[in-house]
Amino acid sequence: MPGKHRSWWGWGTVEDAVTGAEATALTDRVRTLLPEADLTAHAPPPVTELGVRPPRVTPPAPLARLCSADPTDRVAHAHGKAFRDIVRNLHGQVRNVPDLVVRPSSEGDVVDILDWCAGETVAVIPYGGGSSVVGGVEPRLAGGYSGAVSLDLGRLGRVVEVDRTSRAARVQAGILGPALEARLRRHDLTLRHFPQSFEFSTVGGWLATRAGGHYATVLTHIDDLVESLRVVTPAGVSESRRLPASGAGPSPDRLFLGSEGALGVITEAWLRLQDRPRWRAAAAVHFDEYDAAVAATRAVAQSGSHPANCRLLDPAEAFLNAGTATTGGVLVLGFESADHPVTTALDRAVELCQGHGGTLPEPPRATDPDTPRARDTTTDTWRSSFLRMPYQRDALAARSMIVETFETACTWDRFPTLRAAVLDAAGEAFRAVGATGLVTCRFTHVYPDGPAPYFGVYAAGRWGATVAQWDQIKAAVSEALLAAGGTITHHHAVGRDHRPWYDRQRPDLVGQALRAVKGAVDPAWILNPGVLVDRPN
Amino acid sequence: MPGKHRSWWGWGTVEDAVTGAEATALTDRVRTLLPEADLTAHAPPPVTELGVRPPRVTPPAPLARLCSADPTDRVAHAHGKAFRDIVRNLHGQVRNVPDLVVRPSSEGDVVDILDWCAGETVAVIPYGGGSSVVGGVEPRLAGGYSGAVSLDLGRLGRVVEVDRTSRAARVQAGILGPALEARLRRHDLTLRHFPQSFEFSTVGGWLATRAGGHYATVLTHIDDLVESLRVVTPAGVSESRRLPASGAGPSPDRLFLGSEGALGVITEAWLRLQDRPRWRAAAAVHFDEYDAAVAATRAVAQSGSHPANCRLLDPAEAFLNAGTATTGGVLVLGFESADHPVTTALDRAVELCQGHGGTLPEPPRATDPDTPRARDTTTDTWRSSFLRMPYQRDALAARSMIVETFETACTWDRFPTLRAAVLDAAGEAFRAVGATGLVTCRFTHVYPDGPAPYFGVYAAGRWGATVAQWDQIKAAVSEALLAAGGTITHHHAVGRDHRPWYDRQRPDLVGQALRAVKGAVDPAWILNPGVLVDRPN
Repeated sequence: MPGKHRSWWGWGTVEDAVTGAEATALTDRVRTLLPEADLTAHAPPPVTELGVRPPRVTPPAPLARLCSADPTDRVAHAHGKAFRDIVRNLHGQVRNVPDLVVRPSSEGDVVDILDWCAGETVAVIPYGGGSSVVGGVEPRLAGGYSGAVSLDLGRLGRVVEVDRTSRAARVQAGILGPALEARLRRHDLTLRHFPQSFEFSTVGGWLATRAGGHYATVLTHIDDLVESLRVVTPAGVSESRRLPASGAGPSPDRLFLGSEGALGVITEAWLRLQDRPRWRAAAAVHFDEYDAAVAATRAVAQSGSHPANCRLLDPAEAFLNAGTATTGGVLVLGFESADHPVTTALDRAVELCQGHGGTLPEPPRATDPDTPRARDTTTDTWRSSFLRMPYQRDALAARSMIVETFETACTWDRFPTLRAAVLDAAGEAFRAVGATGLVTCRFTHVYPDGPAPYFGVYAAGRWGATVAQWDQIKAAVSEALLAAGGTITHHHAVGRDHRPWYDRQRPDLVGQALRAVKGAVDPAWILNPGVLVDRPN
Repeated sequence: MPGKHRSWWGWGTVEDAVTGAEATALTDRVRTLLPEADLTAHAPPPVTELGVRPPRVTPPAPLARLCSADPTDRVAHAHGKAFRDIVRNLHGQVRNVPDLVVRPSSEGDVVDILDWCAGETVAVIPYGGGSSVVGGVEPRLAGGYSGAVSLDLGRLGRVVEVDRTSRAARVQAGILGPALEARLRRHDLTLRHFPQSFEFSTVGGWLATRAGGHYATVLTHIDDLVESLRVVTPAGVSESRRLPASGAGPSPDRLFLGSEGALGVITEAWLRLQDRPRWRAAAAVHFDEYDAAVAATRAVAQSGSHPANCRLLDPAEAFLNAGTATTGGVLVLGFESADHPVTTALDRAVELCQGHGGTLPEPPRATDPDTPRARDTTTDTWRSSFLRMPYQRDALAARSMIVETFETACTWDRFPTLRAAVLDAAGEAFRAVGATGLVTCRFTHVYPDGPAPYFGVYAAGRWGATVAQWDQIKAAVSEALLAAGGTITHHHAVGRDHRPWYDRQRPDLVGQALRAVKGAVDPAWILNPGVLVDRPN
């Protein structure tokens, strides 16, 4: 982001916010769908008006050079980037501001910071890129802490070592997606982990939250790309052995993957890399019936052909985000390889879809290393829209719209019931909060035994009430997800916002086990308190 | 095994032991390689001569119906099936006999048994099929226990439910491989998890030990086939939600996968299934140079074509177990699919091999649903030899041979050094213990970032000393594995025999975490004591 400035209140950079013609087009589009919406634009207050209290804690002298008490810096680290974070920012409701932002420049610094904080019972919130949409980085604390610091690992941003033979790299946790890819490109390698937050999230954040990435099948989560982890805890440093696989006891890495900063600060990882793809093939298959589209997607997911993209957009999603009108939705299929042509695989997937009534208004597109990349309008429209979505979300959030997503995974047998239950629950919640809107659904990832459905909510709210309105909608759909056999999150993580449902989803005994682990590695209970497990009374 | 009887001292069934012409051919083959070997056959003593002590513990009346105090039954549950177990059996050295074999017929029984044992500090050794080769089921206990019971889940052997849509089944932990596959075949489904122990190991054992199965790539471990687990612990029952994937906190299942009976008794699992393959293609590629064979295998592993079989046999392995003479080894490649032809994938893999100097003395073989299955001599010879290996191992163990395997995984960059170090260490240990023999190497599984090398040891030992000789060799190669960056086990598990190296491989902090978990779920420390972690002092 050379020359650009991170927004304290919204997504990404100030310079990339939606303005002018884009804003007009966006509001015009919303007005077509929701003519009654009040789309008056609101702006956040200046930071100086937020009443940020002075820091309650003072770092020891040797750590002072790593600490920032600047109000804007601290306010920018107070919330993640969920809809409810953005709207609270717009209203100037930033109650839980970290006392300091601490930026270690070495692992030794991290150790020293944890020592200090453990000694003075200061809560430590590990901060990756700050793109949490589940309240994962907000210092919303129970009592008993003398203060809270946001531990920003942005200065630990190096690729330390590349092993071209095994296709792996040792990477510091604070590196952002684009810097990582730029560094790996020199070796003609790529991690190919592209969450929607790619530009503003870090390797450490991906690992701590079990982020979902580029691949729709097989390598869906960052978990699958991990050879080893280095983790600093108040009780010491853990480093697992770099291995392609192991059967020696319960996986050490799986204990920290998904621990969301509550069991340790991930400082480094060996990550599995890919060769850059040279062959690609893609198609957008249209359906008249959604059930048939789901059956076709399941057939592809169970065919063993491992598409890189296998994204079923329901009719509302296809219309809103790809401008495509269908009655049964659109399945966006993509195959890629660094080694061999993929048209045969795509052709077979298309054949499976046609067997379920799918049609191709445009022929499949394929590229090989010798031809310039062909354009696939539907796919490309959808992709660029994907990257702009969070910015557009901010623009709509500032105009009283309720715009948010939630996601899950379930087995195929349960999906029809789950989707119906979610749409029902959302509809009922819309009525209860007096909002009008719609819910869309796409699959972000698919497995042989089930999809990962991702829902989008777009509703006209009342300015000043949209957070409360959303919280009520969210609670309703979360109940529906759990009752229908889904997970409270496939890749957005748990944070603080999903805790009530995570606690019910997680076996109680596993909760006890995690509390015991927490007590062993973080005896002063300073790491991201409120996340994962609560302190025993 | 209708009409057959399990051997108390050796592999599998009494009726399938190597005898007659097979035994003669086997010893003749060994004599060709190791002319100085003393191949006098030895037989185990009768169980009545083992001096089995009476049970030290008495079950409460309601559990008595589940308990067997029969000496043969108990002796058969005293050891696993490692070389050192078999030889100790042959010598009548069966010191750690469980006081009772307990066979629950319901999960409620398991709960009651753990309650009784926790109350009276009786150690509980969960017993799957008893095929552990790492001392995982032997009641080798530190002090403090009033006795030990072997918890045999053989009566919990049902497939409870099949979800054809999601291709998954809910399975009780005590079911053996063949019974499971027979039951799934009715639905035209298969787990396709075929460890060498397939006939004599259970789903629960596979899960507790993170067993390695049929697939050389992607779905290599049973871990990858798990949707959810049900686990009984002294602190309660844990049941995870059935999900294709989740990002909600650290994986609950990964805590129990690989816990080897020390954190709970797995009673049930939802497992992911496969359609039965209809297309197959296979080839055996010969190499003149081993390094080139490794490079070719790496190219295939990194090509993203996901072979079901990708087994590089080094020259000694190819000669001993497939009867094929090469100077660089043989790569056995196999592709399979239930959905589409796989000849294109095989052709590309063969092309990659040819680019590294590989040749095909026999053309590739392919079958599709319309043609009877063609024979591939090398592949088939190797496969049937694979299934007979443990029986032949017993016959050789009874003839003073040291015959054992050990396995690991490492990144590709480290493999040449690791293999050389292992061969050096084994050779030196052979000399130190006065044995002559050889070490072979094959890859059982391959990953984009490294292979899982599997080593075989065949040496002429001295009757009465072969366990001590093997223990010394094993310690030497284990040191070499660890020093060269490997794991102490890729899929044989840790048990008691790998503990010293596992403890060094595992990050200390993860050891502390596991001890904390153990204290939470098994406060009386009765579950498989000595496995995974030791009781804090």
